[in-house]
Amino acid sequence: MFYHIKELQYDSKPSCPDPVYAKKLQEVLGGQYGEITVMMQYLFQGFNCRAEPKYRDLLLDIGTEEIAHVEMLATLIARLLDNAPVDQQEKAAEDPAVEAILGGMNPQHAIVSGLGAMATDSEGYPWNSKYTIASGNLLADFRANLNAESQGRLQVVRLYEMSDDPGVKDTLSFLIARDKAHQNQWKAAIHELETREQDIVVPTTFPSELEKQAVAYDFYNFSRGEESSTGPWAQGPAPDGRGQFRYVANPPAYGPQAFLMPAPIYIHDTLPMSKM
Amino acid sequence: MFYHIKELQYDSKPSCPDPVYAKKLQEVLGGQYGEITVMMQYLFQGFNCRAEPKYRDLLLDIGTEEIAHVEMLATLIARLLDNAPVDQQEKAAEDPAVEAILGGMNPQHAIVSGLGAMATDSEGYPWNSKYTIASGNLLADFRANLNAESQGRLQVVRLYEMSDDPGVKDTLSFLIARDKAHQNQWKAAIHELETREQDIVVPTTFPSELEKQAVAYDFYNFSRGEESSTGPWAQGPAPDGRGQFRYVANPPAYGPQAFLMPAPIYIHDTLPMSKM
Amino acid sequence: MFYHIKELQYDSKPSCPDPVYAKKLQEVLGGQYGEITVMMQYLFQGFNCRAEPKYRDLLLDIGTEEIAHVEMLATLIARLLDNAPVDQQEKAAEDPAVEAILGGMNPQHAIVSGLGAMATDSEGYPWNSKYTIASGNLLADFRANLNAESQGRLQVVRLYEMSDDPGVKDTLSFLIARDKAHQNQWKAAIHELETREQDIVVPTTFPSELEKQAVAYDFYNFSRGEESSTGPWAQGPAPDGRGQFRYVANPPAYGPQAFLMPAPIYIHDTLPMSKM
Amino acid sequence: MFYHIKELQYDSKPSCPDPVYAKKLQEVLGGQYGEITVMMQYLFQGFNCRAEPKYRDLLLDIGTEEIAHVEMLATLIARLLDNAPVDQQEKAAEDPAVEAILGGMNPQHAIVSGLGAMATDSEGYPWNSKYTIASGNLLADFRANLNAESQGRLQVVRLYEMSDDPGVKDTLSFLIARDKAHQNQWKAAIHELETREQDIVVPTTFPSELEKQAVAYDFYNFSRGEESSTGPWAQGPAPDGRGQFRYVANPPAYGPQAFLMPAPIYIHDTLPMSKM
Amino acid sequence: MFYHIKELQYDSKPSCPDPVYAKKLQEVLGGQYGEITVMMQYLFQGFNCRAEPKYRDLLLDIGTEEIAHVEMLATLIARLLDNAPVDQQEKAAEDPAVEAILGGMNPQHAIVSGLGAMATDSEGYPWNSKYTIASGNLLADFRANLNAESQGRLQVVRLYEMSDDPGVKDTLSFLIARDKAHQNQWKAAIHELETREQDIVVPTTFPSELEKQAVAYDFYNFSRGEESSTGPWAQGPAPDGRGQFRYVANPPAYGPQAFLMPAPIYIHDTLPMSKM
Amino acid sequence: MFYHIKELQYDSKPSCPDPVYAKKLQEVLGGQYGEITVMMQYLFQGFNCRAEPKYRDLLLDIGTEEIAHVEMLATLIARLLDNAPVDQQEKAAEDPAVEAILGGMNPQHAIVSGLGAMATDSEGYPWNSKYTIASGNLLADFRANLNAESQGRLQVVRLYEMSDDPGVKDTLSFLIARDKAHQNQWKAAIHELETREQDIVVPTTFPSELEKQAVAYDFYNFSRGEESSTGPWAQGPAPDGRGQFRYVANPPAYGPQAFLMPAPIYIHDTLPMSKM
Repeated sequence: MFYHIKELQYDSKPSCPDPVYAKKLQEVLGGQYGEITVMMQYLFQGFNCRAEPKYRDLLLDIGTEEIAHVEMLATLIARLLDNAPVDQQEKAAEDPAVEAILGGMNPQHAIVSGLGAMATDSEGYPWNSKYTIASGNLLADFRANLNAESQGRLQVVRLYEMSDDPGVKDTLSFLIARDKAHQNQWKAAIHELETREQDIVVPTTFPSELEKQAVAYDFYNFSRGEESSTGPWAQGPAPDGRGQFRYVANPPAYGPQAFLMPAPIYIHDTLPMSKM
Repeated sequence: MFYHIKELQYDSKPSCPDPVYAKKLQEVLGGQYGEITVMMQYLFQGFNCRAEPKYRDLLLDIGTEEIAHVEMLATLIARLLDNAPVDQQEKAAEDPAVEAILGGMNPQHAIVSGLGAMATDSEGYPWNSKYTIASGNLLADFRANLNAESQGRLQVVRLYEMSDDPGVKDTLSFLIARDKAHQNQWKAAIHELETREQDIVVPTTFPSELEKQAVAYDFYNFSRGEESSTGPWAQGPAPDGRGQFRYVANPPAYGPQAFLMPAPIYIHDTLPMSKM
Repeated sequence: MFYHIKELQYDSKPSCPDPVYAKKLQEVLGGQYGEITVMMQYLFQGFNCRAEPKYRDLLLDIGTEEIAHVEMLATLIARLLDNAPVDQQEKAAEDPAVEAILGGMNPQHAIVSGLGAMATDSEGYPWNSKYTIASGNLLADFRANLNAESQGRLQVVRLYEMSDDPGVKDTLSFLIARDKAHQNQWKAAIHELETREQDIVVPTTFPSELEKQAVAYDFYNFSRGEESSTGPWAQGPAPDGRGQFRYVANPPAYGPQAFLMPAPIYIHDTLPMSKM
Repeated sequence: MFYHIKELQYDSKPSCPDPVYAKKLQEVLGGQYGEITVMMQYLFQGFNCRAEPKYRDLLLDIGTEEIAHVEMLATLIARLLDNAPVDQQEKAAEDPAVEAILGGMNPQHAIVSGLGAMATDSEGYPWNSKYTIASGNLLADFRANLNAESQGRLQVVRLYEMSDDPGVKDTLSFLIARDKAHQNQWKAAIHELETREQDIVVPTTFPSELEKQAVAYDFYNFSRGEESSTGPWAQGPAPDGRGQFRYVANPPAYGPQAFLMPAPIYIHDTLPMSKM
Repeated sequence: MFYHIKELQYDSKPSCPDPVYAKKLQEVLGGQYGEITVMMQYLFQGFNCRAEPKYRDLLLDIGTEEIAHVEMLATLIARLLDNAPVDQQEKAAEDPAVEAILGGMNPQHAIVSGLGAMATDSEGYPWNSKYTIASGNLLADFRANLNAESQGRLQVVRLYEMSDDPGVKDTLSFLIARDKAHQNQWKAAIHELETREQDIVVPTTFPSELEKQAVAYDFYNFSRGEESSTGPWAQGPAPDGRGQFRYVANPPAYGPQAFLMPAPIYIHDTLPMSKM
Repeated sequence: MFYHIKELQYDSKPSCPDPVYAKKLQEVLGGQYGEITVMMQYLFQGFNCRAEPKYRDLLLDIGTEEIAHVEMLATLIARLLDNAPVDQQEKAAEDPAVEAILGGMNPQHAIVSGLGAMATDSEGYPWNSKYTIASGNLLADFRANLNAESQGRLQVVRLYEMSDDPGVKDTLSFLIARDKAHQNQWKAAIHELETREQDIVVPTTFPSELEKQAVAYDFYNFSRGEESSTGPWAQGPAPDGRGQFRYVANPPAYGPQAFLMPAPIYIHDTLPMSKM
């Protein structure tokens, strides 16, 4: 169960309205790697957690913080939209600054949300739950989380570079720091799981004798030219400590030609001439 | 530019048709973490790569292999659908085995694709490009790749457990091994980048003095109870080697109450009583 | 900002696992009118609220309760999935009960979420933010909320009828009661706004002299036969108290024939013969 | 069955082309609450109607009118796009007015539709049927309809404020008036159903003794601070006339801590340490 | 503007309810090539038509017929759902026939639509407008229409094969015949346009001297093995009568290696080692 | 299985960066009829092909070429984005040229992809597999392919008209020529199939005596006014050579009024008054 307090986790106050920037900022609220994504991802991983309580608690602690980040960004966007001059068509024809606002803002901020934040990205695409994963395997999921925080911080940093507003930059500098904390924390949690499961390959519980071991450490050079042969992924011991990478310059096909039998007549596929 | 050869990378031959299993197998072809996802993700990361050639080559080598995995799985699904008895309604009323097939298979395999594979998941949801990321930052993207291979291998393993067919299991054991190889390879590539960039926090190029450093290593306990305090994410040195985690049992709000000013009249939002 | 406590708002314990029912229950978690929808809708309406604080507080109170409902349903679904026998293919061939489970459950519950709840509906379609609205006009939005609670309670009631499990029915009876409370509450809030704005037609702030008043109370009979003429929507005073409904048995076209001019040549549309 | 006549229900003629405004106007054609939504929603509610004929007729009368509104808006958009100067790149470099058109219009209006309307919204997102509901319960659905007309009229009014073109404003003033008529009509129909079913809580047919009556009129203060206590939703008789609202300042958790049992080994979830 | 009459274009009466078949039939109502697709595609092509009136009329005639097909299929589906025994869980445990219904039907038909048709496909995926095209170029669009009628008729035929119900088969036999009519009609219209435009390559208005003529009739053998060389697409005169096909057994790359320059520092992409 | 070579099929080098044009060009990469669509459509038709090998080879030859077109366009877009000045907010305020770039480019090109191409269209909508079809019936599918190449070439031609950059125009002229080749090739393949199957109506394998033959050649005039009567679709022999078109000026309804029986009480639909 959850409680809300009215204070923001950190202040979200732009120095002045900027509807065009509000459109861009939507990316880190409702985009593929925005705050809604991490909020929903961590909450569902926590609700579904079947491992010991400290992992569930970890997930719900950070997940609950992310709801507060959603709140902060929604507030910031709403304030960037304050008094957007969407009725000033005539003035726009004369004043390039007004015109730039009208042309560059998201029209849905005026027409649909009435100068409020939306759960969409910077191109107006709605947030959807396929941005998230909760697989029940925590090592897999913490890697998803580390990736989400990496992409997320990268996007916030890019938005930081795109702003001149000290208020906006101040709010973003808080989120950038929290994303650093979270990257470090998922990294630490991953390390703990890899250590305890004594393997790095998800899932660690699948017996290796059941997989096609002969190809489990091969690197296949499917692109003409061999620049890829020089990296640590192509030679030397593999990170799991159980095999050596093998660089295969001319990877063979192990299978035969594909061939499918004709469909039954009641399917009405095209039949081979010989079957017509 | 690309060339195709008619041999499969590995054989894809079920011992007998099984349209119900074909439906399930769609998940690792056209689902969130299916083969189309890694194919498109690696190809686009490769096409967009602005770093040195060995990374582009790495990405396109593995990306090109993934096209072959798409081909293998599509072939396997088509064969599992061979002769699906979709016209046998009357017989189904008497024969529970036929009925189970008709009830459990994906109807689109009969109606839409004519007993062919589709680029959708096990619930018929179409593949879409938001499953992928190519950010231009390779450390972030290789983490996305490691996650994708982890989720992907986990799903293939689960499907392996759900099958009794030796032909299917043989094909899956090949994919499981290749996913092990790829997890190791992305892990090795990540390690190289972290070493070369001398940091683990993406993006490593953002000056730390610009972020709110005071909160960059805090763990906030937003969930009543302190089980989360016992993990390596809550105390001791952070993995980036630049700070110590701090566990905050009662995280404060740093910001003031959120308050938004009324919208202009031409927006037709609800105004506060005092403004009406 | 938000806090979490580990207790559920109400217990969510099925009497026994039922993976097929788990699939159905997803509808009211991640469907069009599921708990995620009301949670996100109320939170965003609250975050964006520019009217007086009591409305913002109302929205965030109920919105925060809905996060707890998401948690309850996720827990209930995970428990319905306990020990789903997805590896028992051979046994399924003999035991119709096992087969019914394997055929009727959502395969993603086994393959993707590892026996956890997903933020999708009963057909595996992902939740997306277009299910929600936060328009800034509270009278419009409270109507959206009343509708959401009406559709939502209807769906939970239907699911109640579809279950024989006393534990499930107990949990649903709690949600059904809360949805009654919320329907009453939005209804009361709507009444307050209609009274204060002295109108029922959203937005109440648009000057009626600017609309085409001649057609503002007409009912047009566009379907041959006049059954629709007998309802209160076709005659007598309109609910806004400002007009009388007029039933138009043979509604005319007020406009001319539509006709579009040819496109410029650089668009490469088909041109009329005379312009080629 | 349907017939078409070539006259528009009302004229749709802008005074001059305006491709940037055409982009915005797409919102009320193909957006979440655009004309396609109400057309499809009312038609499907009508086709599925199992209640008496006057309701079916009501739904199909208004649904059929909405097809005409789709036609009007499509025509208006196509005319706003007349002769869009999309080939004038060089001129754009010199003439800010041309540049503003090229930068602000939807590129798909030039590339995809050849200066025609599209069934998408103002951000290019396609219309989809999850915008609609036909539940079979008319009280629920008429509330959906009242909401749709409220959001729809609000959006058209906002677009009216954003235009200076008398032709556009004339067309919109017709739609604004019709939306007023429809809001009144759904309101009247809702009142009839509430009266006849002698209740306001959907579905009215669920026995109240089966729901958790103790919480059916509670308002829970989940947000610190008690502004919400002052509204009519928190005290006094509930609108259904069957209970009194109760304001609960510190809402308790009725349930225990959530706890999930470990998954079977064949699922490959992370197991608690004690089970490994 | 449109009018509705209450009679169906053709009767839609199953001999007995069949909720499982109702699920399948959704494909041709709300699927990729279902009746909603052709209805919306033809109506939008008609509304946007800038060519002479006979084409607009053709499009709106057939488009209006398709609304009636939507109505027929919605009615048929609702009737197939009559009295679906969704409350009979206990009985299902004993009666395999009831169980088959409950397991095989679309749960949303019970939970969401209350035994009504939905604007979704056989897997519950919502109809969306990206299934349609209205490009302004009628030759292109009539090809889209011919394709839609081909795929559509194929799907209806497959559903015909999957039914034993004489009532259902009767209704489908009507739709199959109308799809034959429409295939013939679009074929005839295509022939007229190809004749009048004296070319078959869309758009016919682009000057051929502006395209890379040297490759305009090549067939490239990108797949090892030359089975494709034996078809009429690889040799002989091209259908446009302006060139000869040329089979290129070993297609060359005309371009250089791809190489991208590094991104500016403020983008925070991975830089090549030499630029760090 | 597939191989990659590092050379592009044709050079993709703009004369100078143009981030605004990059946004537009996304349409033919990741849009409804972009290169990803034809790549995936042909590959899946090929993988699923159950007819003779020459058709499979044809499909995989062209499908493999389309991967190279995806690569070319991705490269072109990345180069158009070179050095996009997204950090120059202050300068933008003074320099309209910089401002036009910042306002007109896709913000995701800066925030998400780091100046790389995305698998989305010109409005930021993600590519999804519902853009494709592989039905198993080659005549149907080749019509889909002819349509895709027609819409695709039309869009590339429109983009050609929208550019002044000789490098861009050169690349597009190559794609325009290849699309001509492919239109001719699908046309030739269609002709072969129609000849061999001795019919043009898909599927040709359905017995015509099972369809409602009386309506199989009718043209119904559902739109008042008879302009449509003058085309070759309304009179004379049908293209399949088996019937004569019949123009029906006043098309009748063949069916009765639609009427649905009430739902069972456990569905909680609105009941007719008489059943309450």
